[in-house]
Amino acid sequence: MTWPEVKDYLGKSNIAFVPVGSTEQHGLHLPVDNDWWTANEIAKRTSDRVSAKNISVVITHPVAYGVSPHHMVFPGTIALRIQTFIDVIKDVCLSLNKHGFRKIVIFNGHGGNDAALIVAVTELKEQIAGDVYILNWWDLVIDEIKKTCDPPFFHACETETSIAYALDQRVDRSKLKGEIPQLKPTFVKYDFLAGGPRVHAANPPMNKLSSTGSVGHPSKATKEKGEKMLSTVVDRAAEFVLEIAKD
Amino acid sequence: MTWPEVKDYLGKSNIAFVPVGSTEQHGLHLPVDNDWWTANEIAKRTSDRVSAKNISVVITHPVAYGVSPHHMVFPGTIALRIQTFIDVIKDVCLSLNKHGFRKIVIFNGHGGNDAALIVAVTELKEQIAGDVYILNWWDLVIDEIKKTCDPPFFHACETETSIAYALDQRVDRSKLKGEIPQLKPTFVKYDFLAGGPRVHAANPPMNKLSSTGSVGHPSKATKEKGEKMLSTVVDRAAEFVLEIAKD
Amino acid sequence: MTWPEVKDYLGKSNIAFVPVGSTEQHGLHLPVDNDWWTANEIAKRTSDRVSAKNISVVITHPVAYGVSPHHMVFPGTIALRIQTFIDVIKDVCLSLNKHGFRKIVIFNGHGGNDAALIVAVTELKEQIAGDVYILNWWDLVIDEIKKTCDPPFFHACETETSIAYALDQRVDRSKLKGEIPQLKPTFVKYDFLAGGPRVHAANPPMNKLSSTGSVGHPSKATKEKGEKMLSTVVDRAAEFVLEIAKD
Amino acid sequence: MTWPEVKDYLGKSNIAFVPVGSTEQHGLHLPVDNDWWTANEIAKRTSDRVSAKNISVVITHPVAYGVSPHHMVFPGTIALRIQTFIDVIKDVCLSLNKHGFRKIVIFNGHGGNDAALIVAVTELKEQIAGDVYILNWWDLVIDEIKKTCDPPFFHACETETSIAYALDQRVDRSKLKGEIPQLKPTFVKYDFLAGGPRVHAANPPMNKLSSTGSVGHPSKATKEKGEKMLSTVVDRAAEFVLEIAKD
Amino acid sequence: MTWPEVKDYLGKSNIAFVPVGSTEQHGLHLPVDNDWWTANEIAKRTSDRVSAKNISVVITHPVAYGVSPHHMVFPGTIALRIQTFIDVIKDVCLSLNKHGFRKIVIFNGHGGNDAALIVAVTELKEQIAGDVYILNWWDLVIDEIKKTCDPPFFHACETETSIAYALDQRVDRSKLKGEIPQLKPTFVKYDFLAGGPRVHAANPPMNKLSSTGSVGHPSKATKEKGEKMLSTVVDRAAEFVLEIAKD
Amino acid sequence: MTWPEVKDYLGKSNIAFVPVGSTEQHGLHLPVDNDWWTANEIAKRTSDRVSAKNISVVITHPVAYGVSPHHMVFPGTIALRIQTFIDVIKDVCLSLNKHGFRKIVIFNGHGGNDAALIVAVTELKEQIAGDVYILNWWDLVIDEIKKTCDPPFFHACETETSIAYALDQRVDRSKLKGEIPQLKPTFVKYDFLAGGPRVHAANPPMNKLSSTGSVGHPSKATKEKGEKMLSTVVDRAAEFVLEIAKD
Repeated sequence: MTWPEVKDYLGKSNIAFVPVGSTEQHGLHLPVDNDWWTANEIAKRTSDRVSAKNISVVITHPVAYGVSPHHMVFPGTIALRIQTFIDVIKDVCLSLNKHGFRKIVIFNGHGGNDAALIVAVTELKEQIAGDVYILNWWDLVIDEIKKTCDPPFFHACETETSIAYALDQRVDRSKLKGEIPQLKPTFVKYDFLAGGPRVHAANPPMNKLSSTGSVGHPSKATKEKGEKMLSTVVDRAAEFVLEIAKD
Repeated sequence: MTWPEVKDYLGKSNIAFVPVGSTEQHGLHLPVDNDWWTANEIAKRTSDRVSAKNISVVITHPVAYGVSPHHMVFPGTIALRIQTFIDVIKDVCLSLNKHGFRKIVIFNGHGGNDAALIVAVTELKEQIAGDVYILNWWDLVIDEIKKTCDPPFFHACETETSIAYALDQRVDRSKLKGEIPQLKPTFVKYDFLAGGPRVHAANPPMNKLSSTGSVGHPSKATKEKGEKMLSTVVDRAAEFVLEIAKD
Repeated sequence: MTWPEVKDYLGKSNIAFVPVGSTEQHGLHLPVDNDWWTANEIAKRTSDRVSAKNISVVITHPVAYGVSPHHMVFPGTIALRIQTFIDVIKDVCLSLNKHGFRKIVIFNGHGGNDAALIVAVTELKEQIAGDVYILNWWDLVIDEIKKTCDPPFFHACETETSIAYALDQRVDRSKLKGEIPQLKPTFVKYDFLAGGPRVHAANPPMNKLSSTGSVGHPSKATKEKGEKMLSTVVDRAAEFVLEIAKD
Repeated sequence: MTWPEVKDYLGKSNIAFVPVGSTEQHGLHLPVDNDWWTANEIAKRTSDRVSAKNISVVITHPVAYGVSPHHMVFPGTIALRIQTFIDVIKDVCLSLNKHGFRKIVIFNGHGGNDAALIVAVTELKEQIAGDVYILNWWDLVIDEIKKTCDPPFFHACETETSIAYALDQRVDRSKLKGEIPQLKPTFVKYDFLAGGPRVHAANPPMNKLSSTGSVGHPSKATKEKGEKMLSTVVDRAAEFVLEIAKD
Repeated sequence: MTWPEVKDYLGKSNIAFVPVGSTEQHGLHLPVDNDWWTANEIAKRTSDRVSAKNISVVITHPVAYGVSPHHMVFPGTIALRIQTFIDVIKDVCLSLNKHGFRKIVIFNGHGGNDAALIVAVTELKEQIAGDVYILNWWDLVIDEIKKTCDPPFFHACETETSIAYALDQRVDRSKLKGEIPQLKPTFVKYDFLAGGPRVHAANPPMNKLSSTGSVGHPSKATKEKGEKMLSTVVDRAAEFVLEIAKD
Repeated sequence: MTWPEVKDYLGKSNIAFVPVGSTEQHGLHLPVDNDWWTANEIAKRTSDRVSAKNISVVITHPVAYGVSPHHMVFPGTIALRIQTFIDVIKDVCLSLNKHGFRKIVIFNGHGGNDAALIVAVTELKEQIAGDVYILNWWDLVIDEIKKTCDPPFFHACETETSIAYALDQRVDRSKLKGEIPQLKPTFVKYDFLAGGPRVHAANPPMNKLSSTGSVGHPSKATKEKGEKMLSTVVDRAAEFVLEIAKD
């Protein structure tokens, strides 16, 4: 887009999507860019859906680097320090806001970014005229994931791989090897959807969780499972965007 | 304790508890120090329990100030900038670790500290010889909270007030007035235990959620409910500590 | 206090006390929390005294961690980086000021915090509407200390131990062992009240000054000496607070 | 690429390309992503060329946001604070280096990034085992630019637009309107290739230089001019890479 | 000096002097560079004295900018933020130390720098192999100042002006006008040598202390008084340097 | 100058000169303070020249420490971290601007400061009411340098030494030994005036470029060459200052 085109958009809409992910190992079978790529694809599908309802949005270039220190034991990972990542998110949102985007939706594809994103939007709250939302695609379909896939839901797992199939991501089907961590203490769980009781800790280097880098059951992934979950993600993301478009 | 007493402890144990909370408004009925005070009481009860099993722990003075910018609209709140809070947590843990405490359990009493604590322990991971755990008391009893209290579980609510009763915290029983936020968009939920689909955002100033500062149903709180939940919290916290004591 | 109680206070008074100290070794005979505990006790006694003159003040929870890198050679010390400590002081004062406290008195119990506190209040000067004062209890009674105790006045010494007796602090009377540093160069003095000529330097690790961690003559300490000095501290602190209450 | 694929690369090569640009207004006729897009295309063409000589390189995802505060007066610009940009560059290079990439070539497409890149690589010098190079494409063809295009060479100008044509970038040919700044003092020049005598200053908001955002003569741009310059850029970039591949 | 000359020095000596001051208003009668200039002159005289005893020292270029926010109300003051000043001191000392200077003496001429210098040397303590000393010239002659001049000793006062005369500093003798601050509360004292009881606070803007910028009695200053005090300063500074030269 | 004298200046002029350089090795023959000293001398001569045209300027004390990490391998170098240097420049300019200096000219004498100065003035752009210019003396006379001296123009070379002669700097004529670096890759050039094609990189430790620390041909330097170049520098600097004095 040229700047006059962005200006035209701003005449119709003040919603921007910011896809955010990471560049980090994703097991033997998924590319290192999987997380930002997934977020970007979901953002685009959501944009298409709401534009059918006459809601225009602008999608920024994805933030491709995230919080991945625990993945650095595998080559290909590019990790930002957490403070750098927070600063990038804040600067991007502040720039958008300065131009008039008052509803900014961060489409996040990487669980490891969560805490840093919350810090970023909390700090932005007092600096911005408008709202910044964090949309983790999995938080929209926890029910579907539980119905569709076996636990754990963690990294390069059945769910993530199924979504990759559904998005036509490149998947090396000959290397679908995940592992289930056997780490102590048992209160610390390597599954985003595990119920309590639980205690939190920093992730250990990922090779302590899985020698392939994949945690879970990627070999059970199918395109059908992915499409089912993806479809609900986009339905609900669009529903959300239509809701904020009304204010 | 004197330093020779700390030294003696280190001969027997390398576990330290760090109670963490906030100083922030807690509705008309609870004191501003409720969160760190609750965390500290739970830490002490857990220590008593495990010491009956011959496991010694040291409890530091509580970190009484936390992440509470959204509560600043009510007098009495004292909020650290997020980075300051992260630095305090890191410095306390680094000091403990330098003396030989290799298992540090942060007993957290304030939901608003969560993301910052995760950032802190992630950054500590590469600086510390040992492990730092974040123990949010509610994460140990999500099942009990759901069985015992009405939603939302958020701030100065039925659950938090029941726990306060059980701990003999000072409660102004004449002012048990909570409110249920009616904010849009509906995807953003002011209930830590709400299921999905959900989208995250920074908390708005708390007076937009509730004119009293309390969200939920504090008037339904009872000492019995509190004791039931508290008892499970301490059981499970002790179980966790006994597990890490074994390595 | 609940937030409505703080609000009531603010209707009558705009004075807040912030007790500040450290968590650091205090020789064989005093607890590691001695400095913040002392500051807190003096703040409370001063509050009682001025409230008899109808001046209300609010006392915050003490800042229990301070600038103590040189004490880290003894277990039990928890040291903040200097910048972290400055940030905590600033954030606490800014929060208080935002609610309307325009006269903030930091009751400091730890000499090692001095320089950092001056940096903090200098930086606050341009950010705050009101005044922040640093009240080191010993600066109120230099004359009394000189009359009552033998030099050096430094750390876990005769003066500090006498004050501890007077405040009913826990003191291990069987271990009152201090040492007098014999370090070169002689121009650098380990006595806050030593006259000139003198040159300043960072403190060396405390075990180079004293193998017990106590510098001076703690065995000469008595409750009577402590009560005499303490009484003057509180008299003068109250006189100061009554003076600032008038503007 | 998956992590095993990156690992394979590292068996053959320790060269990585990092395309860097900006997201900023580029006049009425070029997209806001022109600078990182250009850098990325040149990196890819250079990679193709050297791989014909059996030299493998890895190209990272481009750093799409740069130093563009002066462009913020036009919508669509997303500017990082300079320190944020420096931190991103450093974190990306440190991650690459940790995996074994010892020769990192930053393909820069945005003149405004220059100073910050030099700061970044200077700071990296003491942290990295290897070398980081900054390759500004125009610095490879100053002679060709002078021969081919009219001055000034500055922003969305004849040169940049010609290169865009050559790379099949989207160009709005109906809006090729540049302006020549008439600002004082004359010693400050808005032309990267202007000879001396000259004095430097921060760029003013770009709308003071040109109401369209384009400085120079974009209407004189042609694909042929672009191809000629581009061809030399790639020739020389490849020559450089082949040289560093030898050590 | 050329670098081979510095190298020669390092063969004989590992002592460096770093003169530090400020650029700030000094009343109607003294130049804004008075503090660093004074420190530099005293450093030179001390160097001369010890070189007569065969002790060589290197004197760095003075750090001419310091901590002077309260003087900014008068033109000509150039103030560093406190953190900037601390960083400069640390970087200068770290550079000296890297070359082998293990005994670094900061000759400080500005009282406002004190706290920041203590922070700097405390932080340096863990980064440097050697010792950094802070030599405030007045701390060497408190007894002489009290005998020679009338209080207050504060800024552009009788003492500072007498020293200026003795050093042949430019003094505008027609404008020797100081004032004595009449600020409340009385516990806060604008006299470095005032005894207790006292409470500390950030300095207010200097024009609240004195309309001329000079606090005290500059008109009572004489060259004789200055020479007497200066002579003792240099005697004792030299004695100190000779002592540290021995280790 | 006293503050009333600065005030008088501000009545006539709002131009300030800030000489900036470094303290770093300059080969066997030039002193370590050469760069700031040169900048300061040129600033003074420019001031004299424009004052003859009734334009008054104030010259600050020079910033004597700069960006010189690569020179630290030679004793006598004192290097600031880049961020420290940027902060100093910003604080000095902000102070000047606060007093009313709206046209600030940084006379820079050290090439290594360039990038950091550009970062500083870019960040200042949004904080300052007025303009900050960077005047590198060599950028005023590139044509003259090329006509007068042999390449490379880099460090303690023919040009720099000639200017030193012309300014009556102390030069050790018995040690005029420069070297020409033979480093790979050839695209990285150690000559500020070298034409393209070129690629940039951080400077290596200077002893890899030259064992004496001098790069180029200092033995060809003469006072006449220096005077010729210096005269043009001052002519053009004065012309520039007269131009900005007009607005």
